[in-house]
Amino acid sequence: MLAPPSKARIAHARRLDRRAFRESTGEFLAEGPQAVGEAVAAGAAREVFVGSEVVPRLRGLVDSALGAGVRVYETADDVVASLSDTSTPQGVVAVCARVDIALQTALGQAPRLVAVLAAVRDPGNAGTIVRTADAAGADAVVLSAESVDLYNPKCVRATTGSLFHLPVVVGSPVGEVVAAARAASLRVLAADGAGSVDLDTELDSGRLAAPTAWLFGNEAWGLPAELRSLADAVVRVPIHGQAESLNLAAAAAVCLYASARAQRRPEERDPS
Amino acid sequence: MLAPPSKARIAHARRLDRRAFRESTGEFLAEGPQAVGEAVAAGAAREVFVGSEVVPRLRGLVDSALGAGVRVYETADDVVASLSDTSTPQGVVAVCARVDIALQTALGQAPRLVAVLAAVRDPGNAGTIVRTADAAGADAVVLSAESVDLYNPKCVRATTGSLFHLPVVVGSPVGEVVAAARAASLRVLAADGAGSVDLDTELDSGRLAAPTAWLFGNEAWGLPAELRSLADAVVRVPIHGQAESLNLAAAAAVCLYASARAQRRPEERDPS
Repeated sequence: MLAPPSKARIAHARRLDRRAFRESTGEFLAEGPQAVGEAVAAGAAREVFVGSEVVPRLRGLVDSALGAGVRVYETADDVVASLSDTSTPQGVVAVCARVDIALQTALGQAPRLVAVLAAVRDPGNAGTIVRTADAAGADAVVLSAESVDLYNPKCVRATTGSLFHLPVVVGSPVGEVVAAARAASLRVLAADGAGSVDLDTELDSGRLAAPTAWLFGNEAWGLPAELRSLADAVVRVPIHGQAESLNLAAAAAVCLYASARAQRRPEERDPS
Repeated sequence: MLAPPSKARIAHARRLDRRAFRESTGEFLAEGPQAVGEAVAAGAAREVFVGSEVVPRLRGLVDSALGAGVRVYETADDVVASLSDTSTPQGVVAVCARVDIALQTALGQAPRLVAVLAAVRDPGNAGTIVRTADAAGADAVVLSAESVDLYNPKCVRATTGSLFHLPVVVGSPVGEVVAAARAASLRVLAADGAGSVDLDTELDSGRLAAPTAWLFGNEAWGLPAELRSLADAVVRVPIHGQAESLNLAAAAAVCLYASARAQRRPEERDPS
């Protein structure tokens, strides 16, 4: 029922493992039923490649893609696997149009919570923070120009579809991001293990209820001094034990959820 | 100055990449200056292999190992790299004696916060949760019998030395762990995205200040129903956005830090 892809379409999709080709085409790959489903729902999917073996199982996904006007190709499972970045391919890959929007647009609607990744280099960390920001109800995520490519396959995979859920900005120098955050009336907090203020103290003070942009720095060297000096406060997650530091994505989860809690009065929270 | 290792010692160390050999010898590998330094400080290191190129830089580490009576071998950098699990070896690897202790011992001293990994299978997640539990001031971490091997090189690396910092238990069936936690007067909370109680509600209620054991389940299927039924409450981290779920290590960070905060009155917290 489904047409096979031409060799040219397969070759095109395969070249999207390279950043330069992603940038010249404005496209990237999403893989696995969940991410492809979210790409279709978000209107970002352009082409979907499904392995013959999984077509029966993914009938619902295939139908919704076709219903949305997306070209769906059925091909050999090893061809789909050749488009996959993982050692356990899930039989379905979509070519998607990039989803990032302009910084001013993302911050233009009175955001309350924004995560800014400043020179985050590990794609797994970056993707996990996008997912966590989505879960914490953030209004936008910004990957600064110095950060890993959002459309790196490992990063896309770590977002588990969240890059299709909330406004994401890429490519702005972090100084511009901070200026735009201030212009959007956001309090700018730099998360850093050497911060002068403790996250618990921030929570106790009530200040964390204000609209906030969190800056998260590089895995190895944190946030440079000039960036910390731009922030309203440099906040550390307290280390109660002997660990030297927290993993970046874990620290981001604690900070973003602290803000999410502080910004909601008990009656606004998710009822049990 | 430092002796070269015999081929037999190198071969022995190299075989520790296999779980069966780790279990028969009671040994495992830790790599990189920080982890090796912590292994030496904890008295867990038995042998250290240092690459010739990094010996001058790691003089302090070498001296402290020698001072602790650890055998230190200098060898070719590619030999040390062959013992490494990473694509960016850091030139130093230690053979360590396993550090886990008995469940009863770990829970024997009126613990306030314990993390239990029930069938966590990804070594990176497991190691990150050990690190996070250490940072949050947990008194112990338990990896149930169904979980990944603590001494898997990827897991050891993700702990960034924290497995040498706090009591760790491995190999107990999770039912026994829950029984022991109750016997130690711990409230048992199962973390699950489908939980009936919201983490914010737990915090608001004051119940989170009680001594607590958190159960964290498998990355894919969470906690099985029979395990959830053993818990005093099944608690979900609220999802405010559209994300389907949180990454396991991120959810664990939010839960453990919620307890760490609830268990400390403001005056007990880390002052700013």
